[in-house]
Amino acid sequence: MDNNPLPTGSMIGILGGGQLGRMLALAAAKLGMRTHIYCPDKVSPAFEITPHKTVAAYENEAALAAFAKNMDVVTYEFENVPAATANYLSQRTRLAPDAKALEVSQDRLLEKQFLADNNIAIAPFAPVNDSQTLQTAIAKIGLPAVIKTTRFGYDGKGQHTLRTQEDADQALLSLTGQQLVLEKFVPFDREISVIVARNAAGQTRAYDPAENVHTNHILHTSTVPASIGKDTLDQATTIACTIVDALDYCGVMGIEFFVSETENGTTLLVNEIAPRVHNSGHWTEAVCVTDQFEQHIRAICNWPLGPKTRMADVTMENLIGDDITKIPLNDGSAAQPHVYGKLEARVGRKMGHINHVQLTNS
Amino acid sequence: MDNNPLPTGSMIGILGGGQLGRMLALAAAKLGMRTHIYCPDKVSPAFEITPHKTVAAYENEAALAAFAKNMDVVTYEFENVPAATANYLSQRTRLAPDAKALEVSQDRLLEKQFLADNNIAIAPFAPVNDSQTLQTAIAKIGLPAVIKTTRFGYDGKGQHTLRTQEDADQALLSLTGQQLVLEKFVPFDREISVIVARNAAGQTRAYDPAENVHTNHILHTSTVPASIGKDTLDQATTIACTIVDALDYCGVMGIEFFVSETENGTTLLVNEIAPRVHNSGHWTEAVCVTDQFEQHIRAICNWPLGPKTRMADVTMENLIGDDITKIPLNDGSAAQPHVYGKLEARVGRKMGHINHVQLTNS
Repeated sequence: MDNNPLPTGSMIGILGGGQLGRMLALAAAKLGMRTHIYCPDKVSPAFEITPHKTVAAYENEAALAAFAKNMDVVTYEFENVPAATANYLSQRTRLAPDAKALEVSQDRLLEKQFLADNNIAIAPFAPVNDSQTLQTAIAKIGLPAVIKTTRFGYDGKGQHTLRTQEDADQALLSLTGQQLVLEKFVPFDREISVIVARNAAGQTRAYDPAENVHTNHILHTSTVPASIGKDTLDQATTIACTIVDALDYCGVMGIEFFVSETENGTTLLVNEIAPRVHNSGHWTEAVCVTDQFEQHIRAICNWPLGPKTRMADVTMENLIGDDITKIPLNDGSAAQPHVYGKLEARVGRKMGHINHVQLTNS
Repeated sequence: MDNNPLPTGSMIGILGGGQLGRMLALAAAKLGMRTHIYCPDKVSPAFEITPHKTVAAYENEAALAAFAKNMDVVTYEFENVPAATANYLSQRTRLAPDAKALEVSQDRLLEKQFLADNNIAIAPFAPVNDSQTLQTAIAKIGLPAVIKTTRFGYDGKGQHTLRTQEDADQALLSLTGQQLVLEKFVPFDREISVIVARNAAGQTRAYDPAENVHTNHILHTSTVPASIGKDTLDQATTIACTIVDALDYCGVMGIEFFVSETENGTTLLVNEIAPRVHNSGHWTEAVCVTDQFEQHIRAICNWPLGPKTRMADVTMENLIGDDITKIPLNDGSAAQPHVYGKLEARVGRKMGHINHVQLTNS
């Protein structure tokens, strides 16, 4: 692969037209890059940020071929890009992060196996297909445990907590026919995440960990700094860099950790990885010299990574559904809003976010 | 005029497709607004930021009418919008800043008269049309002095410094047939500028003054904080707010000042005003919770102004012509680049800028 930096004016293809694609397109524009959004939904937030778009299914090979022909690099805003799409594009242009990153991260079982193979601490797990493998898994892991579909789960969808054998039987009924994985329930004290970037030259840079709070299984706030000690911070950073190096990864990745305080000290387990810019990294936009979106664009364009310099403490607050009516803010506080331009504020829909900034020296 | 905040998803028309229009469009997108760029140049940097554009002359009434019909508010990136265009648009949609702001700021003589009428300190000046009025002006003001065209001057174009009567005769020959103004030459110690915002409700907010250094009459760097005392800072801020209040202004304005240290203390004279976002305010993008571009969009959309909170010290460096080859930066410093996406790096052309950030608490 040619590792020269892409010149400004290059064309970046983005699969997916939601808020992450939109924010990637905004960041690309700041670096003088052009963007082309590929999305099957006729009305997509990212379509308002560039004159270049393709409205077509991810399985439409003719559309993919025409798209790929004009792109200097193609990236994506979601990890569920079909493998066939990723492979088809990879044969025609550069896909970053590559198909391997998608393969590993879109299947929980492969992901856990990959992490375990790289000696990254994760919760004990076992594959489940049916009632018999579920019994075997429970015998191995014990209860309480969490059963999850291996694919297409997000925001708490496709998973159940099992406390009793009855829970297990019921969950199996509702998830029947899908490949599943059972994980030991981790009674963690907090969740943190690390946004890490790696470019094709192997340079890595991890942002300060954020501490995440969920409401109804949807991220509510991410606060930086997280209330963890320096050892835990360093450990999380090291793990994040190990993961992207092991994948020979190119781009930004979001990595979620469970933090447990035990009598033996602090335990850190990786919960999941996302091969893309991540909701828990939106705080970087307000207070970092290079935010996660620009960092992703730099990485996939073979640019040197930007500084991760953080200028202030911050709490990112997601605006879900009707929360968007808080905008415009009028409280005089040091808050930076970002509105995704979605037409309809449906329940549970991510409509925007607010970065609440606290100066560290005031 | 209806002073309700424009809802997200509103359509903002922008006259001019250069880097300022481009950065306004990026800021509007962050607030969930849509933008439509109107520019006569087929290849314009701002056209890459939105799917909505009109390529037409500013005098094309049919194009202006069609444009105005779909806009919730129209703004501009340059003060030389023809008066007829401004008036035509004002009859069909809301123009912000309004035609009055354009009228005053696009004519140096009107601008100076306006400032003088509002008791704002400026250099002594006199109108010049011909050799006779030039002699009268020199007799009144003395030499050295600077003679300038009243209209369409920028980056040092359309002006000459007069030290002798011969300079005066020669300058008159080269500027013949234009309305001119003679200004007393001010031997200033530094130039500062204040970016100030005012919304339709009359709320004003001035950013910290920047200290500007020019090279070949083009802005080279803007540094914040400026090396001025608190009294001077307060005085500049007060003057900036007086100016926008006197114009019943709506939007962001850039105001340049000459600072002179004399035995009687510090003297502050207004050099010129620009009814738009300003090159010397690009530093706000990297270190302020609300930058000048977002502030302008907030003002013209009747939103409450954002906080001007500054998170760090900063020097903005313009990238002129071949300077753009510095990008991508690879020195590991806390620098944030912005590339305007212009295809050709002509001599003297503003191609991008870099914000060099210095943490105030490190």
